[in-house]
Amino acid sequence: MRDVAIIGTGITKFGELWDTTFREIFVDAGVRALDDSNVSGHNIDAMYIGNMSAGQFIKQEHVGSVIADHSGLKPIPCTRVEAACASGGLALREAFISVSSGINDLVVAGGIEKMTDLLSDKPNGILGALSDREWEAYVGATYPGLHALMARRHMHKYGTTEEQMAEVAVKNHKNGALNPYAQYQREISKEAVLKSAPVTTPLNTLDCSPISDGGAALILAPAEKAKEYTDNPVVIKGTGQASGTLSLHDRDSLTEIPAAVQAAESAYEMAGRKPFEIDVAEVHDSFTIAEIMGVEDLGFCEKGEGGKMVEEGKTRIGGEVAVNPSGGLKSKGHPIGATGIAQAVEIATQLQGEAGKRQVEDAEIGLTHNVGGSGGTGVVHILERGD
Amino acid sequence: MRDVAIIGTGITKFGELWDTTFREIFVDAGVRALDDSNVSGHNIDAMYIGNMSAGQFIKQEHVGSVIADHSGLKPIPCTRVEAACASGGLALREAFISVSSGINDLVVAGGIEKMTDLLSDKPNGILGALSDREWEAYVGATYPGLHALMARRHMHKYGTTEEQMAEVAVKNHKNGALNPYAQYQREISKEAVLKSAPVTTPLNTLDCSPISDGGAALILAPAEKAKEYTDNPVVIKGTGQASGTLSLHDRDSLTEIPAAVQAAESAYEMAGRKPFEIDVAEVHDSFTIAEIMGVEDLGFCEKGEGGKMVEEGKTRIGGEVAVNPSGGLKSKGHPIGATGIAQAVEIATQLQGEAGKRQVEDAEIGLTHNVGGSGGTGVVHILERGD
Repeated sequence: MRDVAIIGTGITKFGELWDTTFREIFVDAGVRALDDSNVSGHNIDAMYIGNMSAGQFIKQEHVGSVIADHSGLKPIPCTRVEAACASGGLALREAFISVSSGINDLVVAGGIEKMTDLLSDKPNGILGALSDREWEAYVGATYPGLHALMARRHMHKYGTTEEQMAEVAVKNHKNGALNPYAQYQREISKEAVLKSAPVTTPLNTLDCSPISDGGAALILAPAEKAKEYTDNPVVIKGTGQASGTLSLHDRDSLTEIPAAVQAAESAYEMAGRKPFEIDVAEVHDSFTIAEIMGVEDLGFCEKGEGGKMVEEGKTRIGGEVAVNPSGGLKSKGHPIGATGIAQAVEIATQLQGEAGKRQVEDAEIGLTHNVGGSGGTGVVHILERGD
Repeated sequence: MRDVAIIGTGITKFGELWDTTFREIFVDAGVRALDDSNVSGHNIDAMYIGNMSAGQFIKQEHVGSVIADHSGLKPIPCTRVEAACASGGLALREAFISVSSGINDLVVAGGIEKMTDLLSDKPNGILGALSDREWEAYVGATYPGLHALMARRHMHKYGTTEEQMAEVAVKNHKNGALNPYAQYQREISKEAVLKSAPVTTPLNTLDCSPISDGGAALILAPAEKAKEYTDNPVVIKGTGQASGTLSLHDRDSLTEIPAAVQAAESAYEMAGRKPFEIDVAEVHDSFTIAEIMGVEDLGFCEKGEGGKMVEEGKTRIGGEVAVNPSGGLKSKGHPIGATGIAQAVEIATQLQGEAGKRQVEDAEIGLTHNVGGSGGTGVVHILERGD
């Protein structure tokens, strides 16, 4: 196994992209990443694409072929991977393994989802497919409902408040307002979150990440060759993946995601890093409670202290660890399969010092935390400056 | 990169498995493979699962988590990969890469599809998702219809006949009648194929593979450690993957599958083998014409000679190269995501000399040929006896 670096990044505007098709979205992100890496498409050895449910959203499977073909990059092997909201994280991990193994040199890790302009089902009906359809969705548990159960339990057990959850949304929108690719580039107030329409108490509309279209891509290369392409490569120092129970009712506790804890442990161990060394992190804030549990699961604070940590401003840009400087899923948007890659795009951009107005000062070590469903899959990557 | 061996295989009965759920089917195959390999589930490092469309068939995505959870094997990482009918082949390839890289030792490569007991859409509606939905399926091209176009062109260009296509079905049913896991364990006559109801001329019902449920699994290990687990390991000597155009109308020719040709070239080169050295092959006979094109694309005969090769008995058990001794997709069944793995299960079983009544004598070198959609993805593996 050899070290692997990110030598280029690309991302589309996230949002309701009514004028752009599925295949166009990904090509947009891919071309930006190729441009950024100074690599010609025909020198790519393989592509890994995270996508949750093109089958249900646009009635199109065989996503790897769609993308290789529409990119003009056939016969390059293109493999779709899926793990609900963690699909992008897995695409990055598989791309990492394929370069690390030596079987490939230049590899695209991409992610895409097109969630608007549906033909039949409603998004929330489709999103039941990332929870346990037989034991949760069929009996009426919605995806936000599952997170509301976790939120209630966290409030009961640790005294976490709705105000603390609202602070997550306020912070992420403040960051997202500085991100030209974010779906919602505007600040919101704590009062707005608390007074927004309830979705499933205690979670209100502004506690929930939106339905989004978008794509993102990374170009990976062997670390030893990275400087041939770019002056500021970012090295993937750690990767971790774990599976958890698909259903919430099978867990010992509702207030943590064991798959994310285990994925983080693997990634920290591989990178030889500790949580307090992380300067900047993209944490999977599908709901505000998910970010609070995420910072705890990653060891940024003690279990149960996540709400307080946010409230005290420790996760702001300029705080102890900047969490979701991109705006996170909440403000940047959450095109499901693209999210894990978009997280890595943001961390790489931060480590390269190219994040503009939302730049985290002296960011040297970053982390991505990507969770599938209500916790059935956890994927964590640790990235570091390559110079 | 290090050599990788198959140390255990498992497969379920293929067919209409009305009494078995999606998750139970895979666990059945997985437990058989673990038993065969003498490995305890908890020593597995990772799982790769090929599945095309659980999202559309049973409204369940996040398939890796479903399987890791229901197998009792969490927190083991479990990754779903998808490339339409080539999903299983890609699962094998990714599992191979993960062992070859050194990141993992013991890895499950599995595949599953549950295509019966649908909730809403009909199978043929769902199968449009593996062709080009925008440019083919929406304008009325069905999946059998695309293959009928290829068949007509092959007949026009090379003089291939409906009788020759029927001979593929006759041979594969003869083999499948000897396979206790096959969906249709009965012989059929050439007349029966020719007189069966037309689906899309020139393809009749008995030219088409069926709708099936089923699962299959392999246990992979580093070749150097394989003998710790089994006396008769099978080594994966070559792997090749390529992307083609998703749509038929974008191809230079309708009578070959460039992605399969390129995948085969890669696999032959990696294994250091030539087509004439292959003793036994599982060839992707989703339709009878597909096997005829497949044996040509693999170099078992000259282009255009596939129909004649079948007619002359050269692809029978005991012929020049035994093609589809398992019964192939036609008679064994075609649970889409499982097919690529099931092909490797058959080849491994043949190389181990454990194929019972359908054993190919002195089989030492085998090949699997797995095609996604109408040719958007090709995956070829070359397997050899490990002793």
